[in-house]
Amino acid sequence: MNTKMIRYILGKMLGAEALLLMLPALVGAIYGEHEGISFLIPAMMLVCIYFFTGRKKPEKTTIYGKDGMVIVALAWLLWSVFGALPFVISREIPDYIDALFETVSGFTTTGSSILTDVEALSKCMLFWRSFTHWVGGMGVLVFVLMLTSLDKNSSMYLMTAEVPGPEKEKLAPKMMSTARILYGIYFGMTILQTILLLFGGMNLFDSLLHAFGTAGTGGFSNYAASVGHFDSAYIDVVVSVFMILFGINFSLFYMLLLREFKGVWKNEELRAYLLIITVSTLLIAMNISGQFASPLKAFRYALFQVASIITTTGYATADFVQWPMFSKCILLLLMVTGACASSTGGGIKVSRVLIILKTIKREIKQMTHPKSVSIIRVNGKKMGTDVIRRVCAYLMAYAVVAIGSILLVSIDNKDFATTFSSVMATLNNIGPGIGAVGPAGNFAEFSVFSKLIFCIDMLAGRLELFPFLMLITLPVWKKQF
Amino acid sequence: MNTKMIRYILGKMLGAEALLLMLPALVGAIYGEHEGISFLIPAMMLVCIYFFTGRKKPEKTTIYGKDGMVIVALAWLLWSVFGALPFVISREIPDYIDALFETVSGFTTTGSSILTDVEALSKCMLFWRSFTHWVGGMGVLVFVLMLTSLDKNSSMYLMTAEVPGPEKEKLAPKMMSTARILYGIYFGMTILQTILLLFGGMNLFDSLLHAFGTAGTGGFSNYAASVGHFDSAYIDVVVSVFMILFGINFSLFYMLLLREFKGVWKNEELRAYLLIITVSTLLIAMNISGQFASPLKAFRYALFQVASIITTTGYATADFVQWPMFSKCILLLLMVTGACASSTGGGIKVSRVLIILKTIKREIKQMTHPKSVSIIRVNGKKMGTDVIRRVCAYLMAYAVVAIGSILLVSIDNKDFATTFSSVMATLNNIGPGIGAVGPAGNFAEFSVFSKLIFCIDMLAGRLELFPFLMLITLPVWKKQF
Repeated sequence: MNTKMIRYILGKMLGAEALLLMLPALVGAIYGEHEGISFLIPAMMLVCIYFFTGRKKPEKTTIYGKDGMVIVALAWLLWSVFGALPFVISREIPDYIDALFETVSGFTTTGSSILTDVEALSKCMLFWRSFTHWVGGMGVLVFVLMLTSLDKNSSMYLMTAEVPGPEKEKLAPKMMSTARILYGIYFGMTILQTILLLFGGMNLFDSLLHAFGTAGTGGFSNYAASVGHFDSAYIDVVVSVFMILFGINFSLFYMLLLREFKGVWKNEELRAYLLIITVSTLLIAMNISGQFASPLKAFRYALFQVASIITTTGYATADFVQWPMFSKCILLLLMVTGACASSTGGGIKVSRVLIILKTIKREIKQMTHPKSVSIIRVNGKKMGTDVIRRVCAYLMAYAVVAIGSILLVSIDNKDFATTFSSVMATLNNIGPGIGAVGPAGNFAEFSVFSKLIFCIDMLAGRLELFPFLMLITLPVWKKQF
Repeated sequence: MNTKMIRYILGKMLGAEALLLMLPALVGAIYGEHEGISFLIPAMMLVCIYFFTGRKKPEKTTIYGKDGMVIVALAWLLWSVFGALPFVISREIPDYIDALFETVSGFTTTGSSILTDVEALSKCMLFWRSFTHWVGGMGVLVFVLMLTSLDKNSSMYLMTAEVPGPEKEKLAPKMMSTARILYGIYFGMTILQTILLLFGGMNLFDSLLHAFGTAGTGGFSNYAASVGHFDSAYIDVVVSVFMILFGINFSLFYMLLLREFKGVWKNEELRAYLLIITVSTLLIAMNISGQFASPLKAFRYALFQVASIITTTGYATADFVQWPMFSKCILLLLMVTGACASSTGGGIKVSRVLIILKTIKREIKQMTHPKSVSIIRVNGKKMGTDVIRRVCAYLMAYAVVAIGSILLVSIDNKDFATTFSSVMATLNNIGPGIGAVGPAGNFAEFSVFSKLIFCIDMLAGRLELFPFLMLITLPVWKKQF
């Protein structure tokens, strides 16, 4: 491993975090809150680290797959470790593990919270909390790659470890050259949503925070009732539409800019994604219609929750824990499905679900006609055996991590719905689950041990398991190589 | 498809069921129960069907993979459809869907019940119920293959569709020649357990029924409190040991007969299976020790439940729904894991779990060293890419069937633990779940629709998904070929 290069890149990344911490400090200054000072202490620590490790580029800059994974896993971990400090220093979240949980939840765009009274926080802390979503959304690393310069191969190894979706190596080199454009789209859409929310009567602070949470598909709100606080059909629809948009593969927006409309329209994952949203919304709307004054209102609440869960955002306009089990099971299923590949959303991703279904179909075909060779195509492209093998391995690792986490969290002896859905909500970077961790609940009641398990799940889920699994098992690997 | 041959084999199999129905009729005669007559009516129907379709062998006897899967899926379905009739005719289970559920649960060795008062049944019905476990245990088809004669390839296609485990084609031809020996072992072990239970003070009827349930890893008991009814440490230990034995790959017993002790001892799946049992028992015993008078007693109850669940038998000596969530989650995990390949147990099977874990390990290795080629070995044997591909497809299909079933059953609006565990308990052929379907509960409260879903899950689980998935999707396939 190129430890010097790892230290150099991590140093650069921590320096970048120091810059980011200036923003909530500024917000504190604007609102005249003394809590703003809490951001300066970790920022100074980070600057020191940057000066010691991140300034002088090592001679040997080449890094490989293993280094890439270690860097990415450590980067997310360290950003969270330092990002949690302002909460503790300001005593707004006095317990460090709680603060770490909240920050990991922010950067991984999960949106689960340990706060029992979110509205008691100062404005600069609320800003930082939502801002971590926005930064985490496009990937801590993509952001830093723009600031630093690496040779093409080395960047690719970093990208491979971070960008979500089953077909990474093809996307990564292309995305390197277009990273700035994608960030531009991300930025533009956030601004657009903020403006649309302002039109709905929200103030600038609320609009900005909710746009951050939507763009990163995070879900932190500065109100206990989440988006339900505003109780406005207009705001519900705006947020629903933008959640769905941020759950779409970002390269499709790039294609739209290039006027390749046909390619976008023919995109199989997009079609499946929109189909799942439509069917789920209709089923839930029918299932919950008895609880609402009109079918249209049931549809509005169903659409919002479906969009919020499939994109793994986690905003809520209703306490869906009170909905019938059928609706809750659909939402649990959407938690696992997740959004499109290369979006800001979490979960298994729709394209992987497509590959899974096509693999089963091929298997049945091959059992009946053993000599037939059938090829799996997604978006008209042949899926190589290595892509399918990796999807299989991912799915297996996903199941093992989920089961292991459920087992460890069950030591807390909560009811089954809470135990199961809290792991699903964190591993898939959703936010709320069902049971005690529903939209009206929070994660405060869990033991420190469970909170740490959730932190690992959130990070592992955001990085699609393998970089983090590798970091955890690194001592074992070192021996073998 | 060779429809003539399909009809011929199915006719033969239904004729065989007529013979089996004579046994409970005999039990009825011995105990002087008039309910015994109810077995003669379906038996006569089956004999008629046999005379029309199962006597004259068609000229073209060759069958292929697709035919094999259709035969196997239909055989299990038809046996259940006719096997349910005595319950309805005798009015002991007046509703046909309930009777079908009970019979499917019997033949698939699940052990889930819709009976609210099992002790009210006549002795001949209780015998038939437990006897279906014993017949289902070694496979309806293996049994019939011994009676009929087919060319080697055709039998293999039938075996492939029925024998559980990831490496079927290698086992199948070998098992054909040894089917009689394996049946001998099965028979011998059942007798041995019956004798040992007699020593424990059980009467012959109870001993035989509980040996049937153990051998088939089924779990029907003729007492509401299951094995807990006897409240005897000796009986608990005997049943625990035999459940564990019947969960072991049967070819290992054959190897023992051939004095190949080393091969048995080195068997990786057996070692993993015993390790899982040991670790789970110790963890649960510690977790529940507060509820019992002594650690030894906690150990006894933990061992029994672990053995019962991992082998997918489903007997109970305690109402584990009252245990802490950690113990319940371990049991839920064991439900999915299941027993060894080529045993009478259900679930994913320990060997598949081993392949899954090794695939994840290889994936991490390949991510860090992209050019390394590593081979997955189980029991020292190289696993071909086709075996791994099939395990992946199986796992995916398993997840899809489980999720789909949970969604459909959730329409009944039971709590989450009941909804989730009822599907797990039937799909993995366990019997009891947690929540309302725990050892003290039953499946009576579900809607007819859910009961049919459970029937499909039990059959699909017993046949390891694909034959049944193919049968259901047959109309679609016909168009394509």
